[in-house]
Amino acid sequence: MSEPAGMLDPELFGACPVPQSRYDQIVLGHGGGGLLTNELIQRLFVPAFRNDVLEALEDQATLRFGTDNGVKAPRIAFTTDAFVVRPLFFPGGDIGKLAVHGTVNDLAVGGARPLFLSAAFILEEGLPLADLKRIVASMRSACDEAGVTLVTGDTKVVDRGKGDKVFITTSGLGLVPEGRSLSIRSARPGDCLVVSGTIGDHGIAIMSVREGIEFETVLESDTAPLTDLVRVMLDACPSIRAMRDPTRGGVSSALNELAEASGVGVRLDEAAIPVGAEVRGACEMLGLDPLYVANEGKLIAVVPAEDAERLVAVMRTHPLGRNAALIGQVVAEHPGMVTLRSIVGGERVVTLLSGEQLPRIC
Amino acid sequence: MSEPAGMLDPELFGACPVPQSRYDQIVLGHGGGGLLTNELIQRLFVPAFRNDVLEALEDQATLRFGTDNGVKAPRIAFTTDAFVVRPLFFPGGDIGKLAVHGTVNDLAVGGARPLFLSAAFILEEGLPLADLKRIVASMRSACDEAGVTLVTGDTKVVDRGKGDKVFITTSGLGLVPEGRSLSIRSARPGDCLVVSGTIGDHGIAIMSVREGIEFETVLESDTAPLTDLVRVMLDACPSIRAMRDPTRGGVSSALNELAEASGVGVRLDEAAIPVGAEVRGACEMLGLDPLYVANEGKLIAVVPAEDAERLVAVMRTHPLGRNAALIGQVVAEHPGMVTLRSIVGGERVVTLLSGEQLPRIC
Repeated sequence: MSEPAGMLDPELFGACPVPQSRYDQIVLGHGGGGLLTNELIQRLFVPAFRNDVLEALEDQATLRFGTDNGVKAPRIAFTTDAFVVRPLFFPGGDIGKLAVHGTVNDLAVGGARPLFLSAAFILEEGLPLADLKRIVASMRSACDEAGVTLVTGDTKVVDRGKGDKVFITTSGLGLVPEGRSLSIRSARPGDCLVVSGTIGDHGIAIMSVREGIEFETVLESDTAPLTDLVRVMLDACPSIRAMRDPTRGGVSSALNELAEASGVGVRLDEAAIPVGAEVRGACEMLGLDPLYVANEGKLIAVVPAEDAERLVAVMRTHPLGRNAALIGQVVAEHPGMVTLRSIVGGERVVTLLSGEQLPRIC
Repeated sequence: MSEPAGMLDPELFGACPVPQSRYDQIVLGHGGGGLLTNELIQRLFVPAFRNDVLEALEDQATLRFGTDNGVKAPRIAFTTDAFVVRPLFFPGGDIGKLAVHGTVNDLAVGGARPLFLSAAFILEEGLPLADLKRIVASMRSACDEAGVTLVTGDTKVVDRGKGDKVFITTSGLGLVPEGRSLSIRSARPGDCLVVSGTIGDHGIAIMSVREGIEFETVLESDTAPLTDLVRVMLDACPSIRAMRDPTRGGVSSALNELAEASGVGVRLDEAAIPVGAEVRGACEMLGLDPLYVANEGKLIAVVPAEDAERLVAVMRTHPLGRNAALIGQVVAEHPGMVTLRSIVGGERVVTLLSGEQLPRIC
């Protein structure tokens, strides 16, 4: 993606340590989960709303509500995500399923038990009610599968040409058990990185529909609720330090954020990363790197080295973890940076996605 | 608004007691807060998600989170709203302020103390970053004024022509004090209805910008956080049974929902309803009824008759309640129906808005 010329007005962002972006308008890349999204958050949202919970930049905020009687209140995890995926219906899922799974997973990977959801719909005039009904039914069954209840909602309608059929924003609440504390700031040198399965399936499934790519078998999105897999993992291995679901921006974004937040380096082993044959083929054909492609039913866990093999073995007993693999280590070298030892030898830096690879993937 | 011909597919909605709508597509009226919004909720969303909390149709869901140790957990109120107002900036406010106030007010009128917000942005490619920065700064100051903290967020970008600059969905969490229980199901015959000030200001302010109507003074939106007014009211008058903020669909929608939920009738006295001179003039010119026009900083309270005068007096000591007035009674007759005794004499039914009066008002 080419960038428009001209410097951004420094007044707009004030003094900040990050180099000035050259954008003065929103571009698709600001929604891609990579470098530009990161800049928007760090330069515009965080300075404006400045508070400790937001600045932790976890996928969910963990809150404690005071009580009148001085009783120690439970910790509540709170998260929100907007979904603008197109097409609305795709192999393996639809926008409704994605909107439930995405929010449930943000709670689950933070160690919370997802309990309640809200949904706000922005509908475009002319949307067939049959499509809305299908999406809503899909959300209900996704809620049931994930064990959450949708308790409140809202609907707005925009005029034709001012929206795109359906956008859905879900927010979620979950209960964080006492004593549990997962955080992307907790990774330590020596820890191992485990992925729950093949990467890139969601992004390539969406891409294949949009671009009309034919595969020998239908390539489906991996969209799934991770609640039960996370429960099994934490029961077997309470030493897990952090988890992330590598959605927009893929494994690259999730691990760069982890490296940055924990002040550690991450070293990946390309040969160990599970990638399905069709995703690999499609990526080669389209010139994409699977590390940057979105997933909607996968997670990455950071675990002390002594527990890593056992964790992988436990994950493989779960349907959503049967391709789980140890894919790399946390290192003391190159803090804030992710590197990859490639199959053909040599090591390269895995940077944050700098443009927009696949717009509107979730 | 004319309706397309042809009956709605009965398969789509299944058996339901409400007469079949003639729409098979989303129209602007489905977002208007009147009859069509009501139909969409009752026929599509409620049957799909069926659960007690959602079916209560309060403006917020009240939840209790179990704790491991059997301690009685606090009650948490949870609400969500999408904001699609145009223009983004209008006299008295902007979409950011509205997005904070709207969600804070939904919590406050439920008797909760608003504490935390989330915000999800759907941005259209090409939005000037300066506009986004201005909106976000406005949200921050609205949060500060309302005493809430924005703790988590999300940003998505859609391609040019597939959105309309900025849509914002906010979700909110508040703490409901033990023993407090406000509900639109609690109105009883004999109760009085109190409004906190002049009605229709927000809707007419937006309309005047869109239509280029000139007033002698600038007519401003009433958008404001009701947290403090509600606190003062409940401190002085704990007998208050229910409150609602009459936003989309105006006073008419709020009171029809109340009458329906409580199984009571509502009788309004037109002469007692405060309407500003400019709003009255604009409504006459545009053929609008102020009862259907949106408010963003007003509330209606249901209170036992013996406390009504005192409540009005207390409200008038607060800047946001200085035009508070007793506007009607809850009656046993005509349950589910709102009537108005007009200034010129005679009584008419105030029905739910049946089409779309002012699209994208919030």
